[in-house]
Amino acid sequence: NSTDDTGAVLDAIVSQDDVAVATLLESVPVEPRLSLWQDLPSERKLDVLVEMRSDPREILIDATEEEEWSALFSDIEAEELLELMDSLPNRLVDLAYAELDAQQQTFFREATQFNDDQVGHWLTHDLLVLPLNAKVRDGLRLIRRNVPRHCDTIFLVNRSAQFSAVVRMTRIFGSPEHVPLVELIEENIPVLKGTDESTNASLQVQRSGFAALPVVDDNNKLLGRLDITSASELINEFYERQVMATAGMDEDEDLFSPVAKSARNRAVWLGINLLTAFLASWFIGLFEATLQQVVALAVLMPIVASMGGIAGSQTLTLIVRGLALGQVTKANTRALMVKELKVGGVNGVIWALIIGVVAYFWFTDVLIGVVICLAILFNIVAAAIAGVFVPVILDKLKIDPALSGSVILTTVTDIVGFVAFLGLGTLFLL
Amino acid sequence: NSTDDTGAVLDAIVSQDDVAVATLLESVPVEPRLSLWQDLPSERKLDVLVEMRSDPREILIDATEEEEWSALFSDIEAEELLELMDSLPNRLVDLAYAELDAQQQTFFREATQFNDDQVGHWLTHDLLVLPLNAKVRDGLRLIRRNVPRHCDTIFLVNRSAQFSAVVRMTRIFGSPEHVPLVELIEENIPVLKGTDESTNASLQVQRSGFAALPVVDDNNKLLGRLDITSASELINEFYERQVMATAGMDEDEDLFSPVAKSARNRAVWLGINLLTAFLASWFIGLFEATLQQVVALAVLMPIVASMGGIAGSQTLTLIVRGLALGQVTKANTRALMVKELKVGGVNGVIWALIIGVVAYFWFTDVLIGVVICLAILFNIVAAAIAGVFVPVILDKLKIDPALSGSVILTTVTDIVGFVAFLGLGTLFLL
Repeated sequence: NSTDDTGAVLDAIVSQDDVAVATLLESVPVEPRLSLWQDLPSERKLDVLVEMRSDPREILIDATEEEEWSALFSDIEAEELLELMDSLPNRLVDLAYAELDAQQQTFFREATQFNDDQVGHWLTHDLLVLPLNAKVRDGLRLIRRNVPRHCDTIFLVNRSAQFSAVVRMTRIFGSPEHVPLVELIEENIPVLKGTDESTNASLQVQRSGFAALPVVDDNNKLLGRLDITSASELINEFYERQVMATAGMDEDEDLFSPVAKSARNRAVWLGINLLTAFLASWFIGLFEATLQQVVALAVLMPIVASMGGIAGSQTLTLIVRGLALGQVTKANTRALMVKELKVGGVNGVIWALIIGVVAYFWFTDVLIGVVICLAILFNIVAAAIAGVFVPVILDKLKIDPALSGSVILTTVTDIVGFVAFLGLGTLFLL
Repeated sequence: NSTDDTGAVLDAIVSQDDVAVATLLESVPVEPRLSLWQDLPSERKLDVLVEMRSDPREILIDATEEEEWSALFSDIEAEELLELMDSLPNRLVDLAYAELDAQQQTFFREATQFNDDQVGHWLTHDLLVLPLNAKVRDGLRLIRRNVPRHCDTIFLVNRSAQFSAVVRMTRIFGSPEHVPLVELIEENIPVLKGTDESTNASLQVQRSGFAALPVVDDNNKLLGRLDITSASELINEFYERQVMATAGMDEDEDLFSPVAKSARNRAVWLGINLLTAFLASWFIGLFEATLQQVVALAVLMPIVASMGGIAGSQTLTLIVRGLALGQVTKANTRALMVKELKVGGVNGVIWALIIGVVAYFWFTDVLIGVVICLAILFNIVAAAIAGVFVPVILDKLKIDPALSGSVILTTVTDIVGFVAFLGLGTLFLL
């Protein structure tokens, strides 16, 4: 019967790992999500919450009974609280903090001294550490006791707890017990600072060939390590932010967020777009007299704006990626500008001619062909310039070009396109 | 003097790791890129090529002297050749293949039996493998000999070389030498198949808490492992593909590709967009008579199309991400549609009213306000429907919705917007 069925389904769900349960909870509408959440065994709830995106997570947090929290927080660790804290009301953060032991409280306080776009916020504190004068025998003893996940190195520190060097565990296995570890250290391991930007630091971890990199403070004191799992999560989030930003959303957007919340989130972006659309319309309005006399201009108008918008967004996307990966710098902006202008010039000429010819045959009017041809060429070249400058300038102003670049760019190409087309139309056709 | 300077700069560059050199080569225009490439020590060239994106890499491959290749290939391994093969002319692939030893040739042949979107193509073959009856002592002996990068487990196989189980190295350290390894095996480790889709499999690796997961064939024969570095690279590429696809480019697009090549790459997308723009214009053309009499419609027209486009792209982006992450399925498409329709309805009503009021004051004409109000509402709702259906249908047809979704969606919202607006205008205003 149906109760048995539900039980069987629930068992099947619960048998999966935390990420799978989190993904499932994100994939169902709010009602079944909440009922699944009620039925989830209490000891799984915290781990599942940690794996979820903020928006769907907050719905579950709001629906959790007040009395339940101290049980949920009974085994919480600093890293979990750091992941959850932005989704929790302050009183729950305080409650969870009180459940941490002294050591974990220190880790938590240390981490919150860094912003969440800094490496220091995302550290792992399970470390294998030995003094600088330790021998292979000490290393082996340490390894036999307990090796944390994603840990393939032992860190050596001096007497002031300052980071000194790294030894790969695998080099220890093959060496005689009396050899000092300093003879086995890695020469070229990157060392991260707590204040380093988290995406770039994470890329360094992924590339390093190590399971984690050491992280130090300004005085070279060892703070912890950034392991490859955290690094990969940070990079995945970075990319998701980019993908979602192109549509004015953030990476925490919930597939099934409540309608009011979702509508509110998106309304801002629609409003900003509306302002730019009105601006474009206002420019079109300047040419009312022309439009009245040459209605073909009204018919062809969207083509000019659209070709500029597409050409510009191609340049923009390339530059935004380059900025994010550190490949676009002051040193090559000029050369990039020249190259994009040439690409824009080539495509501008080709498409301007094609569109001009089509427009001529459509309206059997040479001048209309000439006007749209010039306007397209002009707009595609303008799009190339804006496609380079808009993101570079936004980046300099510390505004995320992935988010605001496209709306600014489209405003430029719309206005340039309409004004060029209708202006030339006024000159040639009236 | 300047030759010394150049030498110093070159030394500084060469002292960096392969990824850094590859990034630098991608970040400079073609001329300095080629001259840097000439000066790069021969023994670094292959490793640097492996780390580059296809487009900039191919420029360097084309510029490399024919005689140089056999030296470059002298130490090549199967994994490197697999990464490079799509960028190399066939004769160079043959040359490189001939340089592989028998074992590596087998690995290469095995990998090429899988597509490059399958796990089997991206395996690591450095494995720690022991028979099912091995003891802790055997494990320790194996570990002392040589542990590959990103390897924290020993795989156990039966007599037919079939994969049987996994033992964490760390469990071996703490155990007495005579204990059979089967007593230490991990219970819940995911096992990948060579034919598994590479992005999802890579996400499994990132989440697993292991440095690599075992990969088997249909007969459960152990093929190799997918390590976390390869997994992370595959996921980063997946995300870059998504970001670039929104502008009709691929992730290999070169910041400084030659103008002709870059213009050609982008022309296709501009051409597709032009067809849809002409289609939209053709629909506008149906209402020439109306436009001639009510020029306000021409002025306001772009607002209707633009609001629909933005609203649609928000829904589309959310659904495309959901599809890519496996969160949008047959089971929840209907519920998603309902939710997006509600969100579209709310934002549609709000913005339709605002725009209607503004248009009324602008043109002091109630009917213009009513017409644009209805058209906006209609188009935002249509955008929500298209934003869900377009990517879901494309995905079903095995067409990448990240690439073609936006162009189809914009076509829908443009045409619906223009027809609704000008159609209503014809009804109400003539």
